[in-house]
Amino acid sequence: MAKTTTLKEFESVFPKLVEDLLDHAKSYKLPEEFLNWYKASLNANTIGGKCNRGMSVPDSVSMLLESPLSEEQYFQAATLGWMTELLQAFFLVSDDIMDSSITRRGAPCWYRQPQVGMIAINDAFLLESAIYSLLKKYFRSHPSYIELVELFHEVTFQTEIGQLCDLLTAPEDKIDLDNFSMSKYQFIVIYKTAYYSFYLPVALALYHQNIATPKNLKQAEDILIPLGEYFQIQDDYLDNFGLPEHIGKIGTDIMDNKCSWLVNQALAIATPEQRKVLEDNYGRKDKTHEAAVKKLYDELKLEQIYKEYEEKRVDEIRKLIANVDESEGLKKTVFESFLAKIYKRSK
Amino acid sequence: MAKTTTLKEFESVFPKLVEDLLDHAKSYKLPEEFLNWYKASLNANTIGGKCNRGMSVPDSVSMLLESPLSEEQYFQAATLGWMTELLQAFFLVSDDIMDSSITRRGAPCWYRQPQVGMIAINDAFLLESAIYSLLKKYFRSHPSYIELVELFHEVTFQTEIGQLCDLLTAPEDKIDLDNFSMSKYQFIVIYKTAYYSFYLPVALALYHQNIATPKNLKQAEDILIPLGEYFQIQDDYLDNFGLPEHIGKIGTDIMDNKCSWLVNQALAIATPEQRKVLEDNYGRKDKTHEAAVKKLYDELKLEQIYKEYEEKRVDEIRKLIANVDESEGLKKTVFESFLAKIYKRSK
Repeated sequence: MAKTTTLKEFESVFPKLVEDLLDHAKSYKLPEEFLNWYKASLNANTIGGKCNRGMSVPDSVSMLLESPLSEEQYFQAATLGWMTELLQAFFLVSDDIMDSSITRRGAPCWYRQPQVGMIAINDAFLLESAIYSLLKKYFRSHPSYIELVELFHEVTFQTEIGQLCDLLTAPEDKIDLDNFSMSKYQFIVIYKTAYYSFYLPVALALYHQNIATPKNLKQAEDILIPLGEYFQIQDDYLDNFGLPEHIGKIGTDIMDNKCSWLVNQALAIATPEQRKVLEDNYGRKDKTHEAAVKKLYDELKLEQIYKEYEEKRVDEIRKLIANVDESEGLKKTVFESFLAKIYKRSK
Repeated sequence: MAKTTTLKEFESVFPKLVEDLLDHAKSYKLPEEFLNWYKASLNANTIGGKCNRGMSVPDSVSMLLESPLSEEQYFQAATLGWMTELLQAFFLVSDDIMDSSITRRGAPCWYRQPQVGMIAINDAFLLESAIYSLLKKYFRSHPSYIELVELFHEVTFQTEIGQLCDLLTAPEDKIDLDNFSMSKYQFIVIYKTAYYSFYLPVALALYHQNIATPKNLKQAEDILIPLGEYFQIQDDYLDNFGLPEHIGKIGTDIMDNKCSWLVNQALAIATPEQRKVLEDNYGRKDKTHEAAVKKLYDELKLEQIYKEYEEKRVDEIRKLIANVDESEGLKKTVFESFLAKIYKRSK
């Protein structure tokens, strides 16, 4: 029987990895004060999140094996999981600068911490480098070592082109709804989020178990990309319709001029008069304009449209999962467990 | 006989590589407008420099072979050379943001160009990703493919820890000469500059020719790191003592609070009174303070101290080169040609 990891177990692996990374820097005789900086950045930018992406690596490995993991197996799988968290940390530290964000996980963003500022850019680079340092240390003799390295390269590139599209489509300071479209939205969501958040952890689990056959990778991609798209659409839905006490924040997508599923959906069905309401109010930094957009979303029955979308999409994904060919070692439970965590979540 | 490449020949390779990189992005159906952005960034941030680092790859390969390169050999070696230029572009685009620089190669820095701003951070990431995309396309079947990938990872990490040390030692807005020391200076120079500028191109040439034996790599490192250190010290010297019409810019290290060889040298030999002159005038953004530092540099005879340093260091490097063991295919000419380009340069 597979066993699910806990955040506590998963986090307990990280100090060893920090030690490895510091040892790497020490091998070049990096002076003490800079080692301390590096250590602070490694901890501040990785610990404190929900680690859903990272934890899904050991969870997937356990489901592939249909058994709990040995200590050694758990450490290896969790190390791969931490690499996905390091990749995310690299993106979040830099996204926060690009988006002029204020807080992250309830604390000031790294670049807004005392003494940090634009040094955060180099700190982000070091978070990315940490992935390859750990891969080399722990997986150099793994039969899929080069494939693991290439997987991280490719997913990094995919996330970067998704981010490019996002930055150019929805600049915070230049509101132009003509920029938005459902097809751009889909591109952004798939490349900026779905590959690294959903496909990457499962692909890592498959490589870890030496069952990353072309067929298994393709099956994983064909399910996890739509699943990731659904997840992000749900995220956009919750930003407006979720309860702040559930989602842990007050949504700001409307004021931030975000290329959200809701605004794209609204644009697709709005009358010219309703479109004018969006044009006059979307992306403005005050509650009155935001309220006008929220009112329009209600008029357009976006909540209901979302719920219909959700049922239809989940139905499709369930069918995809039911059709998974397990003959090369892939297991339907891997996908079922992702879906179970996401379906009708309120946070 | 080896043949030296020209900037024109070297630059003529790049359009093909840009095409390859755009094809990679097109394979994900990146919409046209974003492809254009990516192309503009690739061209703006790589073309226009002297390409000394990049050109030294085909030059080194030709010297290792002791013959001109075939078209195929030249393309491969120049492609590796362009990867060092892409790595440098990744660093320069981001360094300019971290240093609040104004111009680069006579034009506004990329992040200061219209519409770019902080999107430049993601553009820098894409420049880095381009390295691995090209490595995969052209070197996946090379016997040293994984070593080439790891070499880029390692040199990237080395440059990042050098940059970290530089950023924390000489923040532009907080002048504290106690932060400086010759040992920190040496660390910064070796890691931030020498590895990627000197060691990397020769290591690539050795891998390209399948003669990157541990012994050859070690010999290259043992000569090229001191050579790179000498090069940067010379750069710092020229910033103050070079002729603007030769070096193509007016040096600003004193006003920019740079952890330069000159200020470290001055601190090492200054009397308490002279140190006070430095403390009162270094890192201030005006010509009067700068002039006081320049006057002190003259009093301390730094020009003469530099020239003595140069002779001594060049003498040591020449001895190292004379002792190179060529039995595993390494050639002294590789190092001699680097040294000849650097020794007593005025620009």
